[in-house]
Amino acid sequence: MKKKENNSGSKLKIIPLGGLEQIGMNITAFEYGDSIIVVDCGLSFPADDMLGIDLVIPDVTYLKDNLDKVKGFMITHGHEDHIGALPYVLRDINVPIYATRLTMGIIENKLKEHNLMKGTKRKVVKFGQSINLGQFRIEFIKTNHSIVDAAALAIYSPAGVVVHTGDFKVDYTPVFGDAIDLQRFAELGKKGVLALMCDSTNAERPGFTPSERTVGKTFDTLFEEHKNTRIFVATFASNVDRVQQIINTAYKFGRKVSVEGRSMVSIIETARNLECISIPDNTLVEIDQMKNYPDEQQVIITTGSQGESMAALSRMANGMHRKITIGAGDTVIFSSNPIPGNEKSVTKVINELLRKGADVVFQDAHVSGHACQEEIKLIYTLIRPQYAIPVHGEYKHLKAQAKIAQSLGMEKENVFILSSGDVLELDDESAEVTGKVPVGAILVDGLGVGDVGNVVLRDRQHLAEDGIMIVVMSLDRVSGQLVAGPDIVSRGFVYVKESDELIEEARQSVDEALQKCLDRGITDWGKLKNTTKDTLSDYVWKKTKRRPMILPIIMEV
Amino acid sequence: MKKKENNSGSKLKIIPLGGLEQIGMNITAFEYGDSIIVVDCGLSFPADDMLGIDLVIPDVTYLKDNLDKVKGFMITHGHEDHIGALPYVLRDINVPIYATRLTMGIIENKLKEHNLMKGTKRKVVKFGQSINLGQFRIEFIKTNHSIVDAAALAIYSPAGVVVHTGDFKVDYTPVFGDAIDLQRFAELGKKGVLALMCDSTNAERPGFTPSERTVGKTFDTLFEEHKNTRIFVATFASNVDRVQQIINTAYKFGRKVSVEGRSMVSIIETARNLECISIPDNTLVEIDQMKNYPDEQQVIITTGSQGESMAALSRMANGMHRKITIGAGDTVIFSSNPIPGNEKSVTKVINELLRKGADVVFQDAHVSGHACQEEIKLIYTLIRPQYAIPVHGEYKHLKAQAKIAQSLGMEKENVFILSSGDVLELDDESAEVTGKVPVGAILVDGLGVGDVGNVVLRDRQHLAEDGIMIVVMSLDRVSGQLVAGPDIVSRGFVYVKESDELIEEARQSVDEALQKCLDRGITDWGKLKNTTKDTLSDYVWKKTKRRPMILPIIMEV
Repeated sequence: MKKKENNSGSKLKIIPLGGLEQIGMNITAFEYGDSIIVVDCGLSFPADDMLGIDLVIPDVTYLKDNLDKVKGFMITHGHEDHIGALPYVLRDINVPIYATRLTMGIIENKLKEHNLMKGTKRKVVKFGQSINLGQFRIEFIKTNHSIVDAAALAIYSPAGVVVHTGDFKVDYTPVFGDAIDLQRFAELGKKGVLALMCDSTNAERPGFTPSERTVGKTFDTLFEEHKNTRIFVATFASNVDRVQQIINTAYKFGRKVSVEGRSMVSIIETARNLECISIPDNTLVEIDQMKNYPDEQQVIITTGSQGESMAALSRMANGMHRKITIGAGDTVIFSSNPIPGNEKSVTKVINELLRKGADVVFQDAHVSGHACQEEIKLIYTLIRPQYAIPVHGEYKHLKAQAKIAQSLGMEKENVFILSSGDVLELDDESAEVTGKVPVGAILVDGLGVGDVGNVVLRDRQHLAEDGIMIVVMSLDRVSGQLVAGPDIVSRGFVYVKESDELIEEARQSVDEALQKCLDRGITDWGKLKNTTKDTLSDYVWKKTKRRPMILPIIMEV
Repeated sequence: MKKKENNSGSKLKIIPLGGLEQIGMNITAFEYGDSIIVVDCGLSFPADDMLGIDLVIPDVTYLKDNLDKVKGFMITHGHEDHIGALPYVLRDINVPIYATRLTMGIIENKLKEHNLMKGTKRKVVKFGQSINLGQFRIEFIKTNHSIVDAAALAIYSPAGVVVHTGDFKVDYTPVFGDAIDLQRFAELGKKGVLALMCDSTNAERPGFTPSERTVGKTFDTLFEEHKNTRIFVATFASNVDRVQQIINTAYKFGRKVSVEGRSMVSIIETARNLECISIPDNTLVEIDQMKNYPDEQQVIITTGSQGESMAALSRMANGMHRKITIGAGDTVIFSSNPIPGNEKSVTKVINELLRKGADVVFQDAHVSGHACQEEIKLIYTLIRPQYAIPVHGEYKHLKAQAKIAQSLGMEKENVFILSSGDVLELDDESAEVTGKVPVGAILVDGLGVGDVGNVVLRDRQHLAEDGIMIVVMSLDRVSGQLVAGPDIVSRGFVYVKESDELIEEARQSVDEALQKCLDRGITDWGKLKNTTKDTLSDYVWKKTKRRPMILPIIMEV
């Protein structure tokens, strides 16, 4: 066997570099001998306790340390949690990107924004096509998902074949293009697959995810029921098929369509250029032109279905949008489900819309883009992998898929729930986690990448909870005596006009404590600062049961 | 008619003082002539943008301004969103409290905590009993809810009878006590009811809420399925009936029961003293004693079903609990649904439990305590009110109940969706909103009630997003020249060790700008501070695209 000849004793390593603890950062390294390929390079949105953070990207120290081995990024589809970290990671790991047509189109929009087009090698891959990179060959296989051109990957290595589904569902009647290439999955399974890495998002849900096309029928019904009103449809910016179906229904009912929201406009434009969406002539009109049509001939497709306060829908609901205001008589269809954590903000927008007199439709106009239990079983049954490595989901989802794998007869010890950084070494004889590489979440705040860490976040949390009290004082350079202050300034603590007395009494208690120190000849700044902190902290806690951050600042004059 | 004689031309006023925009603060004033009675007095938990706030209570200025009219508080049941603001409001509005047995027991626990027992008049009311207060008579009517002793109120005034359901469901087979007194509702309806104020929480849900008793059957099944493991059940502290059922099943299976979580222990003790829960001898054991029993004889009922990080369940999951750690082989049953907004923290606990190897059961072990659509229709059909005023819910829930009322034949103009502060004046001839009283949310932070307002919250938000940069300098009292500084201290901005250069350059730019001012003879502190702010803000934005709060402090020496 080739394996034994060329790489005697060597195994395939699979290393998730993010995306397991920190949902969203999908990035996995596959390593064999002198070759590494990377599948996806996603970002994550900040957790609730990451105050002020804009984005979270994976720590790719392991790739940097093995830069000469890294051959390229294979991108499965064009969602942020699979492509979003590319502009950051490419600065250190400048290797070619391989992706299908629309995926690459969306990536290129990003690269343009970051001025990275020139320096980045890119190759558009067709379904069925394979890429040879070092010890690997990677085949792109057609799947279905909530975005066009999603791919699964068959990753061939001397140790065996790994199938990575990417994000997928089984849609026998997709809106655009072909159904998932189940025959190819079967063929690979027949030949023997070492490991299956399968999407776990919906592994807790029984049954099948309905076809995207069922949503089209719902639109037909809803448009029929709301013939005489303006119609707004809120959905995900990247759901090109959904937009296609809204346009189809709008056209059928003789309505004009506008698209609102920067990200959606950009993706629809890209999809149109790549002929991934088909829009009848004279159907799409600029939002400015909509006023020339009566209400019953208007459809506005918009971002903001997750209740994002700055997105077009929220702004149109609360009268902050420059061109359109939603009001009495309008119909708003939510073609989306709230992503966990967004329930409250979605409800807030719905309440606002209802208050304005709009009719809100929140049922039945959405299907998931991820496989449910029966679809997962189908893929396992076609692939019949030796090992299973559930991916894409929180721990409970990975665990749910592991249960499915076992229900299909797989042995528990052949199913691996990995953590970020785990090094799984495998071939057809054995598989085990043999080590751990450094991984982590790097926080992006404005232009700063990684300059906000735990200390800064802890401080932000503290400031957010109870505010800050700053105590300034000037000491004489020679005598060490107080020549000005202590003065107290606070922010985010209490409304000071109401609490002048509190602050003045606090100031006096600090003043007394400091004088006592100075009288005893203590001039060490550290001690003076600690005295200030302790005195003020005790006083404030006693009076208010709060613990603002206390920051003593000493100046020498 | 008595009405015409005594109060010619006068109508009943219904004034919600909270709880419509700010969910949770249930408090409604009923005013007729010289009499006001108040139904419920709840608190609300802080919204996401109320950083550092512990509780939110209603602004009762209207009651304070009419103190001589206020006769008493009628409390429908013992949940925080109906009783929680009492200890704060009683300080200004010291009138008697009327409530049923367990409700009063729970209120008394609160009063004890706040040292308010002595000064507060209280009267325990039986179902069917009426209270005469000024122009009003108030009858307490038995209902069902997720806490024992929940009451609806029939409020008799010279203008007519208003029925307020409180929080309710229709449970024909309740765990404790009788079913909701539907006969009395029918009787009132037959005689004629002016207005119905009905719980809207589940008005969007079709069908009937299942009986609490169905959960008992689920426990039997789950205990049977997990015969050999320790069992944890997480539920709401106040759900006494649920605890009763867990105890029943535990007893059936020969298990001992411990209750963990301060609030739950307190409520169960109160319920036991009032004989609202029946616990077989030798079933309840202290948590310390549990170690004397094998796993398969243990049940631990715990708080924390909403993923609260400080509650017993979270602490037992992450090893922070002093006495119990949940691990491999344990079974954890969630007997609750996540309250909207808590989904993420609940999932976090579930992931943690699964990671520790516990078996987590999250389905079927909970039913709601609120009426669904068919129950709401039943109440409307028994009461047949002249006017409907949906209560208890977000705008979308109130709107959903309004739709139900209309589907039953009520005219749209007889259904009122009120906002906090609205004054609805009504009698059997007409009803309309005639005015607005001052209302609002008062923030409680530690001991401070109302000393944190919008300015402080805005500052906290700003601090949380980008941190703070403090610029201190000392000016000579006589010459007005800089004798020390400017120095920059930052918190929550960037990790300074990494960014010394950034801070030093920022300092230099401020220094230069200040020198220029001073050279031109500018000594006005306001101008110097503004120069500092503008210079630093521009510099930092250019370098980092962030906007930390900038706080210049000048000392004179």
